[in-house]
Amino acid sequence: MKRYRSSEKFGNKFTLDSDKKNSIEIEERVRYSETDQMGVAHNKSYLGWFEIGRTEYCRQKNVPYKDIEAKGYYLVVAEAFCRYMRPLRYDEKFLIRISLEDIKPKKIIFTYELLTWKEKKLIATGYTVHVVTDSKAKVCSLPDDILDKIRT
Amino acid sequence: MKRYRSSEKFGNKFTLDSDKKNSIEIEERVRYSETDQMGVAHNKSYLGWFEIGRTEYCRQKNVPYKDIEAKGYYLVVAEAFCRYMRPLRYDEKFLIRISLEDIKPKKIIFTYELLTWKEKKLIATGYTVHVVTDSKAKVCSLPDDILDKIRT
Amino acid sequence: MKRYRSSEKFGNKFTLDSDKKNSIEIEERVRYSETDQMGVAHNKSYLGWFEIGRTEYCRQKNVPYKDIEAKGYYLVVAEAFCRYMRPLRYDEKFLIRISLEDIKPKKIIFTYELLTWKEKKLIATGYTVHVVTDSKAKVCSLPDDILDKIRT
Amino acid sequence: MKRYRSSEKFGNKFTLDSDKKNSIEIEERVRYSETDQMGVAHNKSYLGWFEIGRTEYCRQKNVPYKDIEAKGYYLVVAEAFCRYMRPLRYDEKFLIRISLEDIKPKKIIFTYELLTWKEKKLIATGYTVHVVTDSKAKVCSLPDDILDKIRT
Repeated sequence: MKRYRSSEKFGNKFTLDSDKKNSIEIEERVRYSETDQMGVAHNKSYLGWFEIGRTEYCRQKNVPYKDIEAKGYYLVVAEAFCRYMRPLRYDEKFLIRISLEDIKPKKIIFTYELLTWKEKKLIATGYTVHVVTDSKAKVCSLPDDILDKIRT
Repeated sequence: MKRYRSSEKFGNKFTLDSDKKNSIEIEERVRYSETDQMGVAHNKSYLGWFEIGRTEYCRQKNVPYKDIEAKGYYLVVAEAFCRYMRPLRYDEKFLIRISLEDIKPKKIIFTYELLTWKEKKLIATGYTVHVVTDSKAKVCSLPDDILDKIRT
Repeated sequence: MKRYRSSEKFGNKFTLDSDKKNSIEIEERVRYSETDQMGVAHNKSYLGWFEIGRTEYCRQKNVPYKDIEAKGYYLVVAEAFCRYMRPLRYDEKFLIRISLEDIKPKKIIFTYELLTWKEKKLIATGYTVHVVTDSKAKVCSLPDDILDKIRT
Repeated sequence: MKRYRSSEKFGNKFTLDSDKKNSIEIEERVRYSETDQMGVAHNKSYLGWFEIGRTEYCRQKNVPYKDIEAKGYYLVVAEAFCRYMRPLRYDEKFLIRISLEDIKPKKIIFTYELLTWKEKKLIATGYTVHVVTDSKAKVCSLPDDILDKIRT
């Protein structure tokens, strides 16, 4: 019998504090192709939005993710979690708030909040854990200059 | 400051026991469109495979999910988690093992294991929590006949 | 032996004239999840961008597509074509130019051009043919007020 | 004014003859994530199925596409066309018939028919044109041994 631990280790340490420095917000709209026959955005779509979120986070920190990969470092997704609280409909505009939860040379954790456009009600929360690897998928450390930019 | 709890409540209760009765296995292959420029399957793809898995689970229990929806019940995804352990490449064949972790009239939890085809090594594990709603997205209870079929 | 005709009937009537009145332009960026292991945007992604394009076209004409559906009309895709001329890479910004090619009460044709951000070089061209149906998938005619707004 | 030609050059030369030697058939099922809020499979999904189709075509000809890429050749999609005739619903089983329409050292054309499972009614038809490139995206010729296997 294998014991399966999701994220209990850091699950209750997460604090999504919108005041904290390392948060950015972007807006998105639900595409028609992101809906399913339930008439709402499909659960897979949220992981795509998380990804757009961290791409923009890195860009705003002056270290575009494509440059990180160009230097031979990859932020491989090791864990992804999403809690869905409120449905999102086609063409609905919403906010994605991305926060840097933790950063170490070999591991980065981002948290995400999706919020309604006007009233800022929670649509979903989630996190992704990333392991740093080189181009051969071997775990390695991000160099200090990249680490500094991401965490500043 | 909001406190954000992932799945610590049931996170360490999961046991993925391949011997247990309520598990089924299906095989899949990675599509080209499911890869990304890292050369491996994209993290979103796994949620799609989990979904195929529970569709097949319900079919094997003689209660196809499309029939559940036709009767006016929806298994809305309330939480999704995936831990990625080993990359999956284009055209690679793999196993999806789907288990019914818990079932209550208003809530169902499925767990998933992705395994390599030959050596049955773990590729990924995960779970989805589903809330039962009616066609107006209001939480309701699944009728006994459906519950009995799914849990048998 | 079935004879299969693609779009020869109107294939050579298309004129993508950027000066014409019924064109709009929007900008997009390639998402990581839209790339594949070739390192470029996957061919499916373009149909998603065409769709975003016509959504924005309708919005700018003051007849948001979600309102069209809310009134019981659906613009079902009957044909889709894309010619891929130049690869698109992750995080690359590009333009989508959407033009109304033809509009009749029961049929609408949009054409699309994807262009590089700076030099406006052609990345791809394409079109979609839409048939108007009611909520039961039966072909019907768009009412005059919607037709007028789209074509103005 | 640019003149835009879709595929009129070979558009009316296509013959989808199910008796011809270079056709194979596979079966697929519509995934929930492939539907949209119209309650049917999204138009993008068909390009994904075409891709699965040509992957299986190559496999059956003993030249798996991943081996072609491993040897440094890429079948880049230069054109894609789909005509949608009949909706496909979630969990519906259907046939994909893939035919080699034309093969030259630098260019391959596949045609596709999607058919209902029981009555073999046409759901959709389409084609993809592929240009052969090397790993640097430069057009090149497929070696004879690969060409022979694909066309046999």
